[in-house]
Amino acid sequence: MSAVLNGMNRTSETPAPLSASNIIFNRSTVERSVPQHGSPEQWAQNVCSDHMVTCRWTLSDGWEVPHIVPYGNLSISPAASCLNYATQCFEGMKAFRGFDGKLRLFRPDCNAKRLVMSAQRVCLPAFDDNELVELIKALLRIDAPRWLPKEAAGRFLYIRPCLVGTGDQLGVQTPREATLYIMMVPWPDFSKESPPGISPRDGLRLYASAEDTIRAWPGGFGFAKVGANYGTSFGAHGEAQHKGYDQVLWLFGPDHQITEAGASNFCAIVRNRDSGLTELITPPLAEKLILDGVTRRSILELARSRMAGELEVVERKFTMHELENAWEEGRIVETFVCGTAFFITPVLSINFNGRELDLPHGDADPGKRFTSLFGDWLRNIQLGVVDHQWAVEVKEF
Amino acid sequence: MSAVLNGMNRTSETPAPLSASNIIFNRSTVERSVPQHGSPEQWAQNVCSDHMVTCRWTLSDGWEVPHIVPYGNLSISPAASCLNYATQCFEGMKAFRGFDGKLRLFRPDCNAKRLVMSAQRVCLPAFDDNELVELIKALLRIDAPRWLPKEAAGRFLYIRPCLVGTGDQLGVQTPREATLYIMMVPWPDFSKESPPGISPRDGLRLYASAEDTIRAWPGGFGFAKVGANYGTSFGAHGEAQHKGYDQVLWLFGPDHQITEAGASNFCAIVRNRDSGLTELITPPLAEKLILDGVTRRSILELARSRMAGELEVVERKFTMHELENAWEEGRIVETFVCGTAFFITPVLSINFNGRELDLPHGDADPGKRFTSLFGDWLRNIQLGVVDHQWAVEVKEF
Repeated sequence: MSAVLNGMNRTSETPAPLSASNIIFNRSTVERSVPQHGSPEQWAQNVCSDHMVTCRWTLSDGWEVPHIVPYGNLSISPAASCLNYATQCFEGMKAFRGFDGKLRLFRPDCNAKRLVMSAQRVCLPAFDDNELVELIKALLRIDAPRWLPKEAAGRFLYIRPCLVGTGDQLGVQTPREATLYIMMVPWPDFSKESPPGISPRDGLRLYASAEDTIRAWPGGFGFAKVGANYGTSFGAHGEAQHKGYDQVLWLFGPDHQITEAGASNFCAIVRNRDSGLTELITPPLAEKLILDGVTRRSILELARSRMAGELEVVERKFTMHELENAWEEGRIVETFVCGTAFFITPVLSINFNGRELDLPHGDADPGKRFTSLFGDWLRNIQLGVVDHQWAVEVKEF
Repeated sequence: MSAVLNGMNRTSETPAPLSASNIIFNRSTVERSVPQHGSPEQWAQNVCSDHMVTCRWTLSDGWEVPHIVPYGNLSISPAASCLNYATQCFEGMKAFRGFDGKLRLFRPDCNAKRLVMSAQRVCLPAFDDNELVELIKALLRIDAPRWLPKEAAGRFLYIRPCLVGTGDQLGVQTPREATLYIMMVPWPDFSKESPPGISPRDGLRLYASAEDTIRAWPGGFGFAKVGANYGTSFGAHGEAQHKGYDQVLWLFGPDHQITEAGASNFCAIVRNRDSGLTELITPPLAEKLILDGVTRRSILELARSRMAGELEVVERKFTMHELENAWEEGRIVETFVCGTAFFITPVLSINFNGRELDLPHGDADPGKRFTSLFGDWLRNIQLGVVDHQWAVEVKEF
């Protein structure tokens, strides 16, 4: 029976692995309207492309054959684990249309491996990360021609793979059924643009979280891209926005360690008082409080390999008081957040305990140098200006 | 347009409150099979009754008219906040068929108020808790005759109200659309029964969590009944079960404070070494680490009012080392977990750092006295043996 269901000659003793080699295609007969670049529809971040990938998993039979189907609502049991117990994880990544007309993914293996890791944290099934990347490529081949056409050189599509616990199961236990799905959305470039009617800013204003507002904790799940980290942060985010700030700077512990900014990683470039060296300081992964961001990782790797001697990369715990102290002594060169959604965006100021720290930034300011440089490096890879192993070309027909 | 949609003469300036006064009924034409009491189908905890309540909310128009419809899958956008960002919360409560044939809810106001509180924690909309109780009653009036018939005196139905962020919205922000739904499930009596083929046990074996496994943190959301607390705990739960234990005893902090057990509250009855008094010790709510359980609250209130002088109720931080010390000195009278799912269930043993603490329990043991007494008190209220304001009768037609 299961062999029929998953379309392969399998027995229930060998649950099927995820495989992108036999995708069933159900092409959409209607073409959804593609939002204009910079339009309110694009800023709404809710217009998905014509198709999506879906693939069902069951504990007994493993992964079924993936489908590419017209984008539309999912049919989910009210008793599904994903709705009751937040057994859900996701990824955020981008496909880029290069200036050479080619379509590229940026380090998709990192996102795919991270989704496997996040899935484990909430007891969702594992899979071969290469197969996920192949599914993403298959979806892009169908929808990129209209949604990221060759004329859109320099632009990108946001890709959102999700894995959620489905099935009928109210018991407080590991899901016995799950669904992987992948959707794609035209997405604003937060690092360069503003919504229509809102004057552009050249960076973010951060509001440091109070001691009674914690994003993540040791022994928790701050390192995993699970839904549980996001909805629970909307309240603090809304309060920060209400006060006129863009994002929360999440602190942790009595010593106010800096962890993340909004849903991005945080980096500060600071002159060391003792050594005189310029350091790129960013919180470490070891405590498992923060996400191992692909943009963060890429910046650190490039800075280490290309700026040795000029910029020291330091992954360590660092506190708001240290940052405040560096600010008072004029040792902050620049600060920025980085992640797929915000790319690399300078920080204009941080409000900490009611004190406003205005930080070096801006085009005319040398403070923007590193931020711009890192951004250029990454964009050049993503858009095919330079050849680099991190850019994975998606061959189109 | 919105006035048409929500069936009331409203403008977008006055979002509609939740109201149970104009429910739209769509009766099921098929009767789902009711699982036999104690059957594997009932233990699967996934057979919902014939109908469910659904009610949509939008930021602009507020609550639409609630519907009672045949139980079935929900149609949810892949981009919904509840699937990506865990904007979801729920309640667990029971309807009881009394020995007098009457149908009763137990303190439904407590669950309804807690759902409002949980909703706020993940930026979901508020509502009048009385209206939620009325919706539950309306659902019971339709389905209780078949699913909790008068012949089933002494039994109960589990009721699961959920509120989830719906709509198309991938931005990391407060949901602009939500859906409230309520389903009902025949549920095993974990406090008295075991699944078919598994020999009955008279209590639970707990496995104390390691320092790298933390359920909740001050400034987090351990006090709210949000999905984010559950899926993230399945891993530790699975490991404990793999080691032969029933539930995790969640510790917190370097001093190993006891917080919750599984998804239940934890209580210990201990003789105080200094005063000689018998104390019911349970972790406090003030730190916001634990759920304000309705069963917990009811036990504490009854113990305070009925056992003054005999049993001292103490809500305070207490640590695993204190419990271990009391165990070594023979001062533990009994320990139990309490909550809607497990009702009041004795704890047989706790494994802490590899040491197995066997705790007083069992019928022949005076250790079972308080647990039995509290259980009898609550059951007598729930089943109408005694009149009590906590039992809210649901009038049937």
